[in-house]
Formats: sequence, C-alpha cells, structure tokens
Amino acid sequence: MYQATFRQMTKQLGQLDKWLETAEASAKARAFEPSLFLGFRLSPDQFAFARQVQITCDTAKLGASRLTGKEAPSHPDTETTLAELRARVQSVVAYLDSFTAKDFEKVATATITQPRWEGKTMTGPDYFLEHVVPNFFFHLTTTYAILRHNGVAIGKRDYLGALTQTAPAA
Amino acid sequence: MYQATFRQMTKQLGQLDKWLETAEASAKARAFEPSLFLGFRLSPDQFAFARQVQITCDTAKLGASRLTGKEAPSHPDTETTLAELRARVQSVVAYLDSFTAKDFEKVATATITQPRWEGKTMTGPDYFLEHVVPNFFFHLTTTYAILRHNGVAIGKRDYLGALTQTAPAA
Repeated sequence: MYQATFRQMTKQLGQLDKWLETAEASAKARAFEPSLFLGFRLSPDQFAFARQVQITCDTAKLGASRLTGKEAPSHPDTETTLAELRARVQSVVAYLDSFTAKDFEKVATATITQPRWEGKTMTGPDYFLEHVVPNFFFHLTTTYAILRHNGVAIGKRDYLGALTQTAPAA
Repeated sequence: MYQATFRQMTKQLGQLDKWLETAEASAKARAFEPSLFLGFRLSPDQFAFARQVQITCDTAKLGASRLTGKEAPSHPDTETTLAELRARVQSVVAYLDSFTAKDFEKVATATITQPRWEGKTMTGPDYFLEHVVPNFFFHLTTTYAILRHNGVAIGKRDYLGALTQTAPAA
C-alpha cells in the first residue's frame, strides 16, 4: 500500500507537470510573462506558487526517502521559470519511479524525524498517514487552486488524471 | 491501511469542523453575515464553498460505504449556514467512527461503480487510491483555501491537526 500510494503521488506529479505546461500556454495566450505565476498566492500570508510546487515535490521525495532510507536527489529551491519547476517535478517523478515494493518493506518499523521536530519522532506508518499524504495533497491542491484562481483552463479531470476503469461487458 | 486512512480522513473532518467554527467567529468579528462564506469561490467556474464542504463529506462517506457495503446516512445538500455544514461534518465523523477493521476486509475484491460512470467499474483498491483519497484531500484543501483567501486566521497546524509524536528520551 505504501508503494501503491507513492505510485499515485507519482501520477499526480505527472498531472502537475501538465498543469504547468498549460499555465505557460495560458500566459502566452493572454500576453503576460509566464514566470509571473511563480509569485502568485491566494493570501498575503500563504506561500507563493513556486513554493507550493517545491513543497509538493519535497513532500513526496523526502517522504519516500525517509521511509526507505534511499538517498533523494537535491533541489536547491532556485527555480525562476515554469520550465525549471517542470524539470524539478520530472526529476522527482524519475526518483519515485526507481522504487520497488521491496524498498518499502521496513516502513512499519521505521522511526522518522526531521530537524524542525526538535528530537521528536514518528513511526513510519504515522508519518506516512498523518504527515506525508495530507501535506502532499495540500500543496498539490493549493498549486491547482492558484492556477484556477488566475484563469488557467484546467479542471477536475486534469487533477485526477485517467482512472483505471473497466468497461461494461458488451 | 484502509481503516487507518479513513481514520485519518475522520481526523481531518474534525479539523474542518474547527475551521468552520473559526470562520463563524471571523465573520462576526469583521461584522459580516457568516453564511456569506457558503457562496464564496476561488474562480467563477469552480464550486462554491458550501459545495466544497459537501463533497469533502460525501467523498469520505460514500467511499467508506461503497468499499464496505455499509449503508451511509443521507444528506440532501440543503445547508444554508455554517452551523448546518458543521452538523453535516459531525454526522459523517460519527458514521466513520462506527467502522472497524473487519468492515474493510473485502475491499481488495470489491467492484465499485457509480451512476456517472455509465456502467464502468473500478476495483476497490483502485477506487480508493485513485478516486477517494485524491478527491477527499482536493475538496478539503479547496475549502481551506477559500477560507484563507477570505482572511480567516487558520494555518497549516489547523490543517494537519496534532501529530502522533514521541518526545526524545530525557
């Protein structure tokens, strides 16, 4: 289930990559500089668009890395264009694609910490359920919301992507 | 894991209930009618706040019901106040609290469909991972985003709620 959920997050990052492509085209069609998107935000005291994309990426990347001990690629938060944000998303997709079910075998007994927790720890399953999944979808959806708020023509299907469905018997 | 994830969704619905309480107080402090929130939206062609709360509730409620076959309470989408939305959230929390691990035993072999799919089906695990979880967090976060956009003083900790952490040894 851990691997399956990270696969779903990988799929969602693929959708995010497409939204960024659509945002670029939308800016060009409306004759404004596409990189303006990076500074847009829904509230003055909420992170701007670029940071939302970066945290979406990092939540998936660092979540997988901390739960498995597999070293993650470094991303120094220096993106200034939509193309650079897309490259980051694609880099995380490639990293997550490298995982196998075996990599997640020790999640149940893992102990997780991070600098801001000041020594506190979480179990692997608690970290995954209470932190990684809610944060990933939070920043992904906030990214989507900033685009929708600024008139980019994406919809719910662009959020979910294709569903694995079986057609009715003829 | 299915049960654990629905427990997490139940926790998030408890957080949502608190946001609605904060929104009510925020409106009163700023001297506007609290029920105005129900019509706010981030984009003219996106669902308004009340609908976002309703779909958040329904995604969790109908997801659990379809995956387990356990009958769900009916909610006719007639809410006109924040208090009525809170009652709906609390009703879904109570419903989800009634589930046990045993209720989810047959998810792996379940076949799911819904009217709008026109006869197409999904497996229980695919429906859960590709549909229920992404949709739940989408509408939950959009609800949060509309409140933040309209100046309600909630933050990331109000989104996540308390984390299950262990303090370092003394």
